Amino acid sequence: MSKTRKQAPARAQAATAVATCDGDGAAGDGAAPTGVSRRRLLGTAGATGLVLGAGGGAAGYAATRPEEPAALTTVGATEAMFHGKHQPGITTPLQARGHLVAFDLAAGAGRKEAATLLRRWSAVAKELMAGRPAAGAPDGPGHDTGIALDAGPSSLTVTFGFGRTFFARTGLTGRLPAALDPLPVFSADALDAKRSNGDLWVQIGADDALVAFHALRALQKEAAGTARVRWQMNGFNRTPGATARPMTARNLMGQIDGTGNPKPSEEDFGRRVFVPASPGKPQEWMEGGSYAVVRRIRMLLDDWEKLPVERQERVIGRRKADGAPLSGGTETTEMDLDKAGPDGRLVIPDNAHARISSPEENGGAAMLRRPFSYHDGITEDGTPDAGLLFICWQADPFRGFVPVQRKLDRGDALSPFLRHEASGVFAVPGGAAEGEYVGQRLLES
Amino acid sequence: MSKTRKQAPARAQAATAVATCDGDGAAGDGAAPTGVSRRRLLGTAGATGLVLGAGGGAAGYAATRPEEPAALTTVGATEAMFHGKHQPGITTPLQARGHLVAFDLAAGAGRKEAATLLRRWSAVAKELMAGRPAAGAPDGPGHDTGIALDAGPSSLTVTFGFGRTFFARTGLTGRLPAALDPLPVFSADALDAKRSNGDLWVQIGADDALVAFHALRALQKEAAGTARVRWQMNGFNRTPGATARPMTARNLMGQIDGTGNPKPSEEDFGRRVFVPASPGKPQEWMEGGSYAVVRRIRMLLDDWEKLPVERQERVIGRRKADGAPLSGGTETTEMDLDKAGPDGRLVIPDNAHARISSPEENGGAAMLRRPFSYHDGITEDGTPDAGLLFICWQADPFRGFVPVQRKLDRGDALSPFLRHEASGVFAVPGGAAEGEYVGQRLLES
Repeated sequence: MSKTRKQAPARAQAATAVATCDGDGAAGDGAAPTGVSRRRLLGTAGATGLVLGAGGGAAGYAATRPEEPAALTTVGATEAMFHGKHQPGITTPLQARGHLVAFDLAAGAGRKEAATLLRRWSAVAKELMAGRPAAGAPDGPGHDTGIALDAGPSSLTVTFGFGRTFFARTGLTGRLPAALDPLPVFSADALDAKRSNGDLWVQIGADDALVAFHALRALQKEAAGTARVRWQMNGFNRTPGATARPMTARNLMGQIDGTGNPKPSEEDFGRRVFVPASPGKPQEWMEGGSYAVVRRIRMLLDDWEKLPVERQERVIGRRKADGAPLSGGTETTEMDLDKAGPDGRLVIPDNAHARISSPEENGGAAMLRRPFSYHDGITEDGTPDAGLLFICWQADPFRGFVPVQRKLDRGDALSPFLRHEASGVFAVPGGAAEGEYVGQRLLES
Repeated sequence: MSKTRKQAPARAQAATAVATCDGDGAAGDGAAPTGVSRRRLLGTAGATGLVLGAGGGAAGYAATRPEEPAALTTVGATEAMFHGKHQPGITTPLQARGHLVAFDLAAGAGRKEAATLLRRWSAVAKELMAGRPAAGAPDGPGHDTGIALDAGPSSLTVTFGFGRTFFARTGLTGRLPAALDPLPVFSADALDAKRSNGDLWVQIGADDALVAFHALRALQKEAAGTARVRWQMNGFNRTPGATARPMTARNLMGQIDGTGNPKPSEEDFGRRVFVPASPGKPQEWMEGGSYAVVRRIRMLLDDWEKLPVERQERVIGRRKADGAPLSGGTETTEMDLDKAGPDGRLVIPDNAHARISSPEENGGAAMLRRPFSYHDGITEDGTPDAGLLFICWQADPFRGFVPVQRKLDRGDALSPFLRHEASGVFAVPGGAAEGEYVGQRLLES
C-alpha cells in the first residue's frame, strides 16, 4: 500500500505536507516493514527554504508576517503511519527527541480498564501522529494542550508495550509469552528497581521536542485514574539535516553506533525482529509484534574521554572517525576477526566490543538497536548523568539481547566505561489494523 | 561586514556550507546586531532534499553509502559568528537545544587563572562554532571527544558571562557594575541557592543536541582545575522546519511566547538590549555587552491544563491559537488595554499576564526574552518537572526585568501556575574582536 499525502495536516500551517509512505507492500515478511519506509524522500523544500523577515536577526522572535511565503519542510511535514502490520517506532528512522514512560495499573484497574485505556491511547496516538490535536472539547478539561500547535507531525511515533507484571494484574497469565521471562542477572548490573520494568510501556519519538512533549502529556492525561507513571526518561538523537546525508548515529562517547544492525533489506530481517504467527499458542496475539529490551546505560564519560583515541578504538574494535573495522575497509566492510598485525596480535582485540557483540560470535543472535542518547545534567559527584537509552528489538530476547549481553558481561573491554542503571522488557504487539486498537488481540480475543 | 561561507566546514562532510552572515554592518547601534543576522536564508536544500538509500526504511541505521549524493542542509551548515560587536546567542534565533552551566572558581584560582580560562574557552568556542573539532592532540587526553563528528556547526553559539561573586574572587570589585546588584526578593520566589548564581555562566545553543553536548563537554574539560560546575540545566525549543515558516515560539503551556519582544528593526532595540559606552566608569568594559537574567520557572502544568482554554486566554490576555490580543486583531496587533466588552468589563483583564508585563504598563521597560523550555522528567509527587529556562537580555536589569517582575509579582493571573526555582544575573561582555578573547577588557585592561 503506497500512500501519498497531499493535503496539509489539520494542525500544521504548512501549505503542503508531502510524505510518501509505504504501508504493507513488503517483498517478504520484514523486507519492507510497515509504517514509514521512505521518509524525507522528496525535495519538498522547494526553492525558498526558510525565509527570515527583513531587518535581519532574531527571527525566532519576529512575529509571523502573513506576506512571508510559507516554506515547505520535510522535518515538520513527515508523517509516520499509525496503522500497519507493525507498530511505528521500531523501523522508523531515529528521531531527534524521545520519551520513554512506564505506567503501573492503578489499584482496582484490571483487564477491562486496561482495554479502555489502550483504545483511548490508540485513538490519541493516531490523531497526534497525523498532526491533529488530541480529541476533547476545546472548552473542557479534556482539551488539547496546544503545545504542538503550528507544528506538523514531525515524524511523531507512539509505540505501546506490555510488561511481565501486566499479565497477572489483568488475569491474562495464560497469554504471558515465555519471551517475557525475567532477564538473567548480569554482573555489571546496578539496576534501580524504581526505574525498571512496569505494567505498560510507551515510547514516543518525534523530530520536534514540543511535538514529543505534547504527545507525552496527552497520553499521560488519558491514563489518569487507570495507570500512574512508574518512571519516565527523555532522550535525543541527531536533528535531521545536521549531517549532510543520513548517517549511522553517534553516541555520547563519539562512537558510530548501529553499524551492525540488521537491515530491512536483509532476507532474515523480519524473522529476527518480528514475532511470527503461532496459532493456538499463548503468544498468538503477538504476531507481527516485537520484544523491546530497554536499558538505561550510563556512560562514564570522564573516564572514557581520558583514553587516547587509539585506545578507544581498540576497546571498540572500530575506527572512531568513520566506524570502519580495525581490520580495514569502510564502515560497512565486514570485520576480519582473524586478522593479525605485524606483532602477531589480533588487529581487532579479543575483548573488543564489536567482536564480542558480533552475530558471528553469538550464533547469529541479532537485534535491531534503536536507542536515544540521554543527558540529565550533572550528578552529585560532578560527573555527567549521561549515556544511552538502549532500546533493542527482536523476535525473542533470549535469542537476541540475552546471549549477546551475557557474552559482553564476561569480557567486553567497554564494560568498565558503562553502568546499566535500569532495565525493562516489554511485549510490543503488532500494529493495529484500521478500526482496531493496539493490544486488542490480547485484551479482547 | 557581510560574510558568505562557501567552503565546507572542516568537520562537516557537507559538500557545501552556505551561511550569509552580517557582521557589524549595522544601521544604528542595535538595528542589525552582530553575529548571525540572516540564517537559514538561502534555499540551499536544492532539488534533492534528503535522499534515502534504496530499499526504503530504517535509514537511520543504514550505513552511509558513498554513492549517495550529499544533500545540502541549512540546519547543519548554518554557522553563527564568534567574533563581533556582541556575543552570539543573544539575537541569534532560538535553537533547538540549549545547555546552561554555571561555574565557581576553584580555591586558589584568581584573576590570572580566570583570564587563562576565558582565553581557552574563547578559542574552543570559536573552533566549535565554525564546525571544527576542539584543539588538542588526537592521541592525547586533550583530544576532541568526536561526539559532533559528521555534523555541521548547526547554529552553535557559546555565550560567556560573569556573576556578581566573580569580582570579589578575582580582585575586580572596582569594576563590578551596579547592574549586578542582587535582585530584589519576590514573593513568588522559591529559589534553590545551589542552582542559582555562580561566578561564571555559559550558555550553549545549537540546532543539534549532539553538537550542543559536544560543546558542553569541551568547555567543561577546559575548566578542569580552574572552575567547577555549580549547576547545569538543559533546555529545548522547536526544531527548525517543524513549522512551515519561522513563528514566535510556544512554551510548554501551549502559549505563544515572545510576541512583545523588542525587534532588532526597532530604533531603540540596541539601547534597550546592549550596554552603551561609558568611558572611565566601572563598567566601561561592558560596552556592547548585555545583562542576562536567568530564571528556572517551573510550570504547574497539571493545574494549568485543567483550565478551559477560554480561562487560560483570560489569564494571558491573548488567544491561545494565534497569540492575538483578546482586544482583537492578529498576533502583532497592539493590545487595546482600555477596550471593554458588552458587560463593561475589560476585554484584557486587569491581571492578565500580557497587560501587566507590557512596556506600556512599565514605563517602557523592555527586555529581550530568549528562553529554552525544559523537561527533567517526573518529580516525586508525580507532577512534571517542566517549564521555562527564562533568559532575558537587557542593558540594565533594573530597567528591564526588575520592574516588570515586581509588577507581575503583585498581581499576575499567571503567577499561581508558576514557581521560580532558581535565579541568576550575569554580566555578558561584548563580543570579542579578532585576536581578542571574551572578557579580556575586564580581565586585562
